Amino acid sequence: MGSLEVAERTTVGLAAKDPSGILTPYKYTLRNTGPDDVYIKIHYCGICHSDLHQIKNDLGMSNYPMVPGHEVVGEVLEVGSNVSKFSVGEIVGVGLLVGCCKSCRACDSDIEQYCNKKIWSYNDVYADGKVTQGGFAETTVVEQKFVVKIPEGLEPVQVAPLLCAGVTVYSPLAHFGLKQSGLRGGILGLGGVGHMGVKVAKAFGHHVTVISSSDKKKKEALEDLGADNYLVSSDTVGMQEAADSLDYIIDTVPVGHPLEPYLALLKTDGKLILMGVINTPLQFVTPMVMLGRKTITGSFVGSVKETEEMLEFWKEKGLTSMIEIVTMDYINKAFERLEKNDVRYRFVVDVKGSKIEE
Amino acid sequence: MGSLEVAERTTVGLAAKDPSGILTPYKYTLRNTGPDDVYIKIHYCGICHSDLHQIKNDLGMSNYPMVPGHEVVGEVLEVGSNVSKFSVGEIVGVGLLVGCCKSCRACDSDIEQYCNKKIWSYNDVYADGKVTQGGFAETTVVEQKFVVKIPEGLEPVQVAPLLCAGVTVYSPLAHFGLKQSGLRGGILGLGGVGHMGVKVAKAFGHHVTVISSSDKKKKEALEDLGADNYLVSSDTVGMQEAADSLDYIIDTVPVGHPLEPYLALLKTDGKLILMGVINTPLQFVTPMVMLGRKTITGSFVGSVKETEEMLEFWKEKGLTSMIEIVTMDYINKAFERLEKNDVRYRFVVDVKGSKIEE
Repeated sequence: MGSLEVAERTTVGLAAKDPSGILTPYKYTLRNTGPDDVYIKIHYCGICHSDLHQIKNDLGMSNYPMVPGHEVVGEVLEVGSNVSKFSVGEIVGVGLLVGCCKSCRACDSDIEQYCNKKIWSYNDVYADGKVTQGGFAETTVVEQKFVVKIPEGLEPVQVAPLLCAGVTVYSPLAHFGLKQSGLRGGILGLGGVGHMGVKVAKAFGHHVTVISSSDKKKKEALEDLGADNYLVSSDTVGMQEAADSLDYIIDTVPVGHPLEPYLALLKTDGKLILMGVINTPLQFVTPMVMLGRKTITGSFVGSVKETEEMLEFWKEKGLTSMIEIVTMDYINKAFERLEKNDVRYRFVVDVKGSKIEE
Repeated sequence: MGSLEVAERTTVGLAAKDPSGILTPYKYTLRNTGPDDVYIKIHYCGICHSDLHQIKNDLGMSNYPMVPGHEVVGEVLEVGSNVSKFSVGEIVGVGLLVGCCKSCRACDSDIEQYCNKKIWSYNDVYADGKVTQGGFAETTVVEQKFVVKIPEGLEPVQVAPLLCAGVTVYSPLAHFGLKQSGLRGGILGLGGVGHMGVKVAKAFGHHVTVISSSDKKKKEALEDLGADNYLVSSDTVGMQEAADSLDYIIDTVPVGHPLEPYLALLKTDGKLILMGVINTPLQFVTPMVMLGRKTITGSFVGSVKETEEMLEFWKEKGLTSMIEIVTMDYINKAFERLEKNDVRYRFVVDVKGSKIEE
């Protein structure tokens, strides 16, 4: 790609080298800043549950060495000759994607996340065969189309988890016509994505019920996150009382689970929106959807356009995400704690404030 | 209900008396014509696959004696004092429902088929405890709200299968925004509902692919019904070539089947619309829906309003259904043949032209 005839740059990040998933320093090259590229110094990067799957090869598709991280906030160091949207010194974001075909129906419709030739921001390869590497690194080079404008006034560290978790819940609510106030929503599972779900749904003016397998998170859901109701899925009386009451459920559970109890909570025309990549089959019986014209659907992150729209919304509403900021030397411990759901609700790594020892 | 102080009327129909499902003559009483009622002499009644399930107690909810039949076309003999929409001598229709609560969200939205207190046109009971009986009978009394206006110019015998099979496919296409021309649709399964699906989808100006488990119906699908394409589900090459090509699939298969092969045929944002009441669970893995924002949904007949809209559409487009007209003395044989899928594509019983021997 690079239009400048100079040697490629090197950078250093933390990479998994094998399915143990332990991250250690790794030095690699970046392409030079091409005409459509933005060269970015990384300030912050959030840790997403899918990073855990990737570094441990849970999906069987991991290539090593792998620098994970796809909730990147950083400062523009250099822009290519065709780049006018961004300027040096500006704080920008990068999410899960860094490439797409630009000619399919999805790309033409600005929903490039559904392009069959999308390129993931790490554990993937560019058309020229160069591997992509993620955000737990000092710098990165990304095509401008995949760089996100961050509205002035938003705190950079706060923005990181919005670039994946945030837009992941915002996008389906916007797409499926669930933005208007007064709706009743359910958030199934209260992890990184679930906590964003409560925040976004409340900001839309919805009545929000958190549904969880235990009452462990009840206090924090109601008091810290502002949910209106809390339902334990094993409480048959509570579940029955709540039948036929919700317009939608954002289902963030990342492992196999029955769908019927949640389909039963939906009103006629209600939508069960799946967010968890689960490779064991989920089941349902057809009368559960037919007799209430209910919908089982799912959604995958969001486009750059939706991400920018979401950030504007976030700023306008004055929202904050609940994060725990850690440094690079804590990252392996952070992944360990994430695996045990021991985080409220998202780790963000302060890359700028860390030193990566080679 | 009855406002006229006279003895209840009797009528005679063909009823199943036990799970053998054999229909024999049965005499029973009808309520008198109440202020909101329409008293109807039945001319024609279609045979739906669900009638077969009901007479044989396949769903474990059958009560006997049971007069099946819910695609009723007949002539108004008498109307109650509040009825102004219909007049004596007019040809009208009755579908699957004869009652609803009139106060829930579904009823308020004119989608009474999703009312939790809906009353089925047979094998159900009215609020006063009187059982409902269906269309294979000489006469019936139905509340005006559930009587369908039939546009002038439509042949009554042709209208019968539209009152369930027809509106069952029309309703979801209309509801889910799939009426505009140029879409590419799939019809999975070519029975009574499937053949209506081809007819309606072609009339909307769609490119229609029939998907079937064998090539047995290929010629008739393409030549008689006007489908554009025919796909055998076991033809892996053909199925692969058709991947990512359909905006929707109307899935009429009434038994358990895998969903993945059909989800794969859908474009991004495509919809798999289930029409078959199947009590064994159907399965799918979440990436199949998430990565293309695909929808699995279902729909249940249609409202009276949609039925009337559908009949106007049918008339405007000059459509015809493909039916086999039989008399009442053939009905047990017709059910036997229906069980073997030996009908192209819907039996309609000529009730008026038959004599029911008590």
